[in-house]
Amino acid sequence: MADEAAKLDEALRRQGDTVRRLKQEKASPEEVAEQVAKLLELKAQLGTEEGKHKFVLKTPKGTRDYNPKQMAIREKVFNIIISTFKRHGAEVIDTPVFELKETLTGKYGEDSKLIYDLKDQGGELLSLRYDLTVPFARYLAMNKITNIKRYHIAKVYRRDNPAMTRGRYREFYQCDFDIAGQFDPMIPDAECLKIVHEILSGLQIGDFLIKVNDRRILDGMFAVCGVPDSKFRTICSTVDKLDKATWEDVKSEMVGEKGLSREAADRIGEYVQLHGGLGLIEQLLQDTKLSQNKLAREGLGDMKLLFEYLTLFGIADKISFDLSLARGLDYYTGVIYEAILLQPQNAHKEEPVSVGSVAGGGRYDGLVGMFDPKGRKVPCVGVSIGIERIFSIMEQKVEASEEKIRTTETQVLVAAAQKKLLEDRLKLISELWDSGIKAEMLYKKNPKLLNQLQYCEDTGIPLVAIIGEQELKDGVVKLRVVATREEIDVRRENLIEEIKRRTCQP
Amino acid sequence: MADEAAKLDEALRRQGDTVRRLKQEKASPEEVAEQVAKLLELKAQLGTEEGKHKFVLKTPKGTRDYNPKQMAIREKVFNIIISTFKRHGAEVIDTPVFELKETLTGKYGEDSKLIYDLKDQGGELLSLRYDLTVPFARYLAMNKITNIKRYHIAKVYRRDNPAMTRGRYREFYQCDFDIAGQFDPMIPDAECLKIVHEILSGLQIGDFLIKVNDRRILDGMFAVCGVPDSKFRTICSTVDKLDKATWEDVKSEMVGEKGLSREAADRIGEYVQLHGGLGLIEQLLQDTKLSQNKLAREGLGDMKLLFEYLTLFGIADKISFDLSLARGLDYYTGVIYEAILLQPQNAHKEEPVSVGSVAGGGRYDGLVGMFDPKGRKVPCVGVSIGIERIFSIMEQKVEASEEKIRTTETQVLVAAAQKKLLEDRLKLISELWDSGIKAEMLYKKNPKLLNQLQYCEDTGIPLVAIIGEQELKDGVVKLRVVATREEIDVRRENLIEEIKRRTCQP
Repeated sequence: MADEAAKLDEALRRQGDTVRRLKQEKASPEEVAEQVAKLLELKAQLGTEEGKHKFVLKTPKGTRDYNPKQMAIREKVFNIIISTFKRHGAEVIDTPVFELKETLTGKYGEDSKLIYDLKDQGGELLSLRYDLTVPFARYLAMNKITNIKRYHIAKVYRRDNPAMTRGRYREFYQCDFDIAGQFDPMIPDAECLKIVHEILSGLQIGDFLIKVNDRRILDGMFAVCGVPDSKFRTICSTVDKLDKATWEDVKSEMVGEKGLSREAADRIGEYVQLHGGLGLIEQLLQDTKLSQNKLAREGLGDMKLLFEYLTLFGIADKISFDLSLARGLDYYTGVIYEAILLQPQNAHKEEPVSVGSVAGGGRYDGLVGMFDPKGRKVPCVGVSIGIERIFSIMEQKVEASEEKIRTTETQVLVAAAQKKLLEDRLKLISELWDSGIKAEMLYKKNPKLLNQLQYCEDTGIPLVAIIGEQELKDGVVKLRVVATREEIDVRRENLIEEIKRRTCQP
Repeated sequence: MADEAAKLDEALRRQGDTVRRLKQEKASPEEVAEQVAKLLELKAQLGTEEGKHKFVLKTPKGTRDYNPKQMAIREKVFNIIISTFKRHGAEVIDTPVFELKETLTGKYGEDSKLIYDLKDQGGELLSLRYDLTVPFARYLAMNKITNIKRYHIAKVYRRDNPAMTRGRYREFYQCDFDIAGQFDPMIPDAECLKIVHEILSGLQIGDFLIKVNDRRILDGMFAVCGVPDSKFRTICSTVDKLDKATWEDVKSEMVGEKGLSREAADRIGEYVQLHGGLGLIEQLLQDTKLSQNKLAREGLGDMKLLFEYLTLFGIADKISFDLSLARGLDYYTGVIYEAILLQPQNAHKEEPVSVGSVAGGGRYDGLVGMFDPKGRKVPCVGVSIGIERIFSIMEQKVEASEEKIRTTETQVLVAAAQKKLLEDRLKLISELWDSGIKAEMLYKKNPKLLNQLQYCEDTGIPLVAIIGEQELKDGVVKLRVVATREEIDVRRENLIEEIKRRTCQP
């Protein structure tokens, strides 16, 4: 029953996506009306279905459980990311899952509507964290820290429209690395990009590209194109949609919804279609209009420095200076970047996973000052790895390869060859545990030997320590190698050493 | 300013505690009135204080950040716990931080009022998880899993009265290990106790005792003492307070608030003061009243079996069969247990940390059935390690020992002996990172050598790779050992191997 409801729920979600897509693509009114009718029908069906049982057995919308196999993949991904952060000398911190509501207020611009609030049950008004950057800035200001390099891996929460097959959730992990402090220009910024490069290379999920831009170049461009100051941030949000929408759609939002003049939009259009490397930077430094603007000149100068450092790091070929990159959040003040995968690795699946951005970040020099009672600033630059999409790709890779993933690390099963040996098994397994051996036994008084061996086959346990009456008399244990079916008698006092030797554990 | 408010907030909290304690201890009305007046005065003060600045810079009530030092301790504790769970062959799962509100409804008895609800922003009604056990049961029912051994480490949320100096928070970690499935009696139950024993021994936080009881023995006892069926659960909650309150207080709550007869309470009083081992179990099996009750007989029979297995595991001396142990939660159906520390290790501090329970759990055979549409049961037994208190103790231990804890793993600092070597440093550090060496450099164009060496002293980096003009000409790097100040020239092509050799990294 719960399955039925879940299926319906999924169908409903897909139908909703279809309707939204058609509207976005400006499909004919007839076509939209037809799909909306289908949507309403599904909704009605779900209503009856839900009435049939006491409650729906599911996780909240946009969230999921991780089963042991998914956790094994997740741990593998985390290990690669954490070891990269540690290689760069990062410390680690943690903050609460919720913050005072006012801590988050005014930090996310148009995205603020996606924040989860807690119910007012008396006491403070709280909200779930929306990212790890604002809590980090609050942490710095609260503890008067002016200099730190830290990572933070935790779940964040956004009441967004979930698209779970594409790895977009309402509860999802962020893996953030940030460098706070007053330093010489572009050195920490370049290290953040090096880190993204190391992580995406290490994960082996295919080719990637890191787009780079600078908020100062964007703002300078807006100024010389004739965008009024008050519209910089909202036009910036619109430019940010260029990775998913066409220029025509973006332009029509600028002119129609945001009230920008057609001429200003056209001038922006000429710039945001540019992307390249050092050559483009040089070209824009010579651009008669843009080079007049102080902010743009500063941004372009730093961009040039950044590319020099990236060349020394040997990663400039994966970086593209792209004037269409804007990033949605309000708090960025300088360099911004976003990494995208170029060829999703899913040749075996019919429907390709469409993966977009897998990492993003930038410089935010003003955020900590917003929390400091005296407005003291702490310059910061950082990057956030969006790993849900990476999980999705890794999961599909594993499924396609039919590789068997072990979900436990058990080295040996303690088994009995005859009945009435429960006490002896308990004594033996206790000895193994106390010596640090990873061991299991079946929770039955008198399990059949065949079932015990089958359990090892199923779960990938490599060794079986078998005791029988004869073995107990002789002071030995029969050690069986599951893969080869080889069996040898090992003296009880040598058993632990023998298991360690055979499972390569020191 | 924020500090002022935090101090006032803390004073207010303490004053609140004082008033509550006086009321509990039934102090004279004059005394209570005096303290209440103080409380109101503090509240008024806080009001004005808060008006002075825009917002309070703090984490929500009952929560805290973890700084890098605390994280280092936390990782050490987690490693011990996780390796124990893995030694016993556990898989790992994860669930969302919130559940549908109805998933949590009716599972926690009197504690339900402590659940955090999310604001109704349209869509599903959600609540933050209160423990990891109910989400686990929901996960099993939803995925029709009848057999699993898993651990889950995550934060849970309770709107309780925090006492943060004693390690009691509103957001805190639980480390849960559970065995689900139909097995022969007491084998998985005994393993859970073995795990608690291994973890508390491994953490080296002093002597401990694990109290054990059984809900069937409690219910049998209530029945023979004359408690009406309908009052079993609520009387159970009252008995659970015996670890903090005297028998007189508990009795007065039973009679006064819960409406139990004075005679029934007195009869309960005789039982709940008993504790012991196998001897006590035998004695109760002979008890003329208790042995008449079927539930109690079953519970006592299983308790005897449990002690036999614990003896085989060699841990029976740390286990106490204690009739006063009740555990607050509604869902337990069989064996229950709770581990307490006997001697907090804090000889160096003036005010001792009062630590209570550090682990608890039991058998809950009915919980999964509450989620299954057909009511199919999956027997479960598990244990939850409450690590916040353990963190508090570990933190105090570290502080007292003045042991220096490193918060990064950096092996080498890339340093320059002269000016204008930024590009060479960037090139060298990039080579090191790409070879897996953990390396840092100062983010300055021309840092002073002394400052670079000082940074190593401060953060515990063991090696410095120094380049100067001469070294670059000669194709070498000067490798300095921070501790001994020894310096040797290493050929550039041998540097990585030399660093690995000296920092024992394979």
